[in-house]
Amino acid sequence: MKHILACLCATLPALTLTAQFLPYVSVAPDKSIKFNIHLNSARRVQLVGEFLPKKEANLGHQKIMVPDTVDLVKDNQGYWTYTSAPVDNDFYYFNFIVDGQAYTNTPGLPLHGNQNYVVTEPDYKVQDVAHGTIEKVWYPSPTLEHKQRRMTVYLPAAYYANPKQKFPVLYLHHGMMGNEDDWTTVGRAAQIMDNLIAQGKAVPMIVVMPNGNWRQEARSAEASETMASPLLAMTNLFEGSYETGFKDVLTFVEKTYRVKRGKAHRAIAGLSMGGLHTQTIAANNPDWFDYVGLFSAAVGTQRPGAHNDIYNDMPQKLDLQFRKKPRLYWIAIGSDDFLFEANKKMRRELDSIKAPYIYQETNGGHDWHNWRRYLHKFAQMIFK
Amino acid sequence: MKHILACLCATLPALTLTAQFLPYVSVAPDKSIKFNIHLNSARRVQLVGEFLPKKEANLGHQKIMVPDTVDLVKDNQGYWTYTSAPVDNDFYYFNFIVDGQAYTNTPGLPLHGNQNYVVTEPDYKVQDVAHGTIEKVWYPSPTLEHKQRRMTVYLPAAYYANPKQKFPVLYLHHGMMGNEDDWTTVGRAAQIMDNLIAQGKAVPMIVVMPNGNWRQEARSAEASETMASPLLAMTNLFEGSYETGFKDVLTFVEKTYRVKRGKAHRAIAGLSMGGLHTQTIAANNPDWFDYVGLFSAAVGTQRPGAHNDIYNDMPQKLDLQFRKKPRLYWIAIGSDDFLFEANKKMRRELDSIKAPYIYQETNGGHDWHNWRRYLHKFAQMIFK
Repeated sequence: MKHILACLCATLPALTLTAQFLPYVSVAPDKSIKFNIHLNSARRVQLVGEFLPKKEANLGHQKIMVPDTVDLVKDNQGYWTYTSAPVDNDFYYFNFIVDGQAYTNTPGLPLHGNQNYVVTEPDYKVQDVAHGTIEKVWYPSPTLEHKQRRMTVYLPAAYYANPKQKFPVLYLHHGMMGNEDDWTTVGRAAQIMDNLIAQGKAVPMIVVMPNGNWRQEARSAEASETMASPLLAMTNLFEGSYETGFKDVLTFVEKTYRVKRGKAHRAIAGLSMGGLHTQTIAANNPDWFDYVGLFSAAVGTQRPGAHNDIYNDMPQKLDLQFRKKPRLYWIAIGSDDFLFEANKKMRRELDSIKAPYIYQETNGGHDWHNWRRYLHKFAQMIFK
Repeated sequence: MKHILACLCATLPALTLTAQFLPYVSVAPDKSIKFNIHLNSARRVQLVGEFLPKKEANLGHQKIMVPDTVDLVKDNQGYWTYTSAPVDNDFYYFNFIVDGQAYTNTPGLPLHGNQNYVVTEPDYKVQDVAHGTIEKVWYPSPTLEHKQRRMTVYLPAAYYANPKQKFPVLYLHHGMMGNEDDWTTVGRAAQIMDNLIAQGKAVPMIVVMPNGNWRQEARSAEASETMASPLLAMTNLFEGSYETGFKDVLTFVEKTYRVKRGKAHRAIAGLSMGGLHTQTIAANNPDWFDYVGLFSAAVGTQRPGAHNDIYNDMPQKLDLQFRKKPRLYWIAIGSDDFLFEANKKMRRELDSIKAPYIYQETNGGHDWHNWRRYLHKFAQMIFK
């Protein structure tokens, strides 16, 4: 099979280490993680992982926080080991660094995309429960003058098992620099929903995850040539186009899938930029959603643009929305989040109109560790 | 947004180059590819890409062929450029190497997974045509004693547009070290099918792409913990279990989707190990498929195992299959493929029973450049 290896190695240089690596990663009952690699010829083996303490690093001229790097210790048989401190229930990426070179793609370990990962939260794991289906489907968006745009749809296991059943729908949005694949990759949405539904903690629901970058019809590799640049997705955001075009998402979903209609059977949520999308769409359409979730929402980031009208008169729109008594308006943010103050300001504004939202403050910052947790909580509170 | 960057940079170190990179990749009318990066501070910028000539390299103690590396030339404004020789119509991965460090994930360029790519074959691009839907769906496999296994399904655009229409089905298999995602990522199957159907060159069809590694229920990140090792998928192959369990795939598909039933509406194909799967399944079930495609098939690689009976009496099984006159039995292989001689032997055996197969020999070897081409040809020949 050496020709197969040759072909792969052209694009995956890490595989050249196959013969040397015998990695083993295990989680102890106290949730410490033990790493073990047999790598006799290496001079230094290090590990970088999301579960390690953060340290300061330079990003161009900016200081940023990145996970620390630790050294593994070699025994006289050539085994390198490291045991972490106990970690939270979560999902963590990590890399080995061998003699200074990082291996994102270590043979023998579970991979997520090209990255090694370890899961300590049972509800983020693929468990022995009925699994839902993930669809990548294109919908027409005349509002954005896009013939087609791509969305990800989670259909609960019951969708194919019970061909007459209708389901409520959660519309779930990614953030800036993200795309329609995020929630089902790093976000673990399929595993979270499968497990919560199987345990009876969430009702079977459809989850619709659109691409929220209005200038991008789909994520890079699935987009036409003129739209394939990932940077294009990041231009001219926060100007209202996505929120204006959202009605095309709703129209397509209600026409295509077996959904329960009406406000009581619709939820909307989103992280960061998707939190702004969520708040804006829900406030402009106060009869659409009984459940609203703002996850580290990028409120206050609106910019002048083509569809600015959708951001106008927000206090009045929110007031009207709350008069119509949504069943849940949930705001969650980490205490280290750079949007913490903006969210505090938003909460004061909601307080001033006596809006009965629910507020959840967590540790941590603006990251997927929190967003996975927020989905896990939010999904248990809706359609009940 | 520096905290967002911080979070991403923990896992995507290439993004730290954002501020410096202004890459531009364009294909000229003569199909030469021009690369241009502004990177003033670099001392050396190189490029490795699948379109470059191959050179010999070491994989442990083996010699393998890998794409060559070329140097870009810097002008006095800090722009580095390289123009390739004219290339074939195809899909190519490439990386920049900046001062010795490879960047698989160059900001601003189209990305496929974490890899930069350039497409020169129009039928591999996302065009302005109606797009089909990609599903990741789980099916029960009692034969393999798996409660659930994962498959990828392509539903043509007409599937949702015409809710009463029924479709023929192509069962399409990946190779060793692959999984159920391959054909719709590196294989470009969704783009190939969308474009051929839109041009009227292929009939609208469902394409079912199962996971062919019988010990693995799904690809690594979508598998339960005990099955998540990518190496597990490579153990105990070629022993008949997958082929024996294939009936569970067929049962699920015909129960779940709007399919036309019967031999005339079923095709099966596969690459490498998937070619062996294809040949074996079709020969053991001579009434199932009117169309069979062997792409660089790993014939002759069968090993003793639990379900060896499925490999027994192949000459008699093939003879019976051909007496039932399948409408197409298509064998394709590259002249440099390490399985070329094994395929020659198989063709001699088919000749000896006067089996009317069609043989297509191409340039090149055991790689996706050929497999994409084979799907592109095969899809135009079936269900007509």
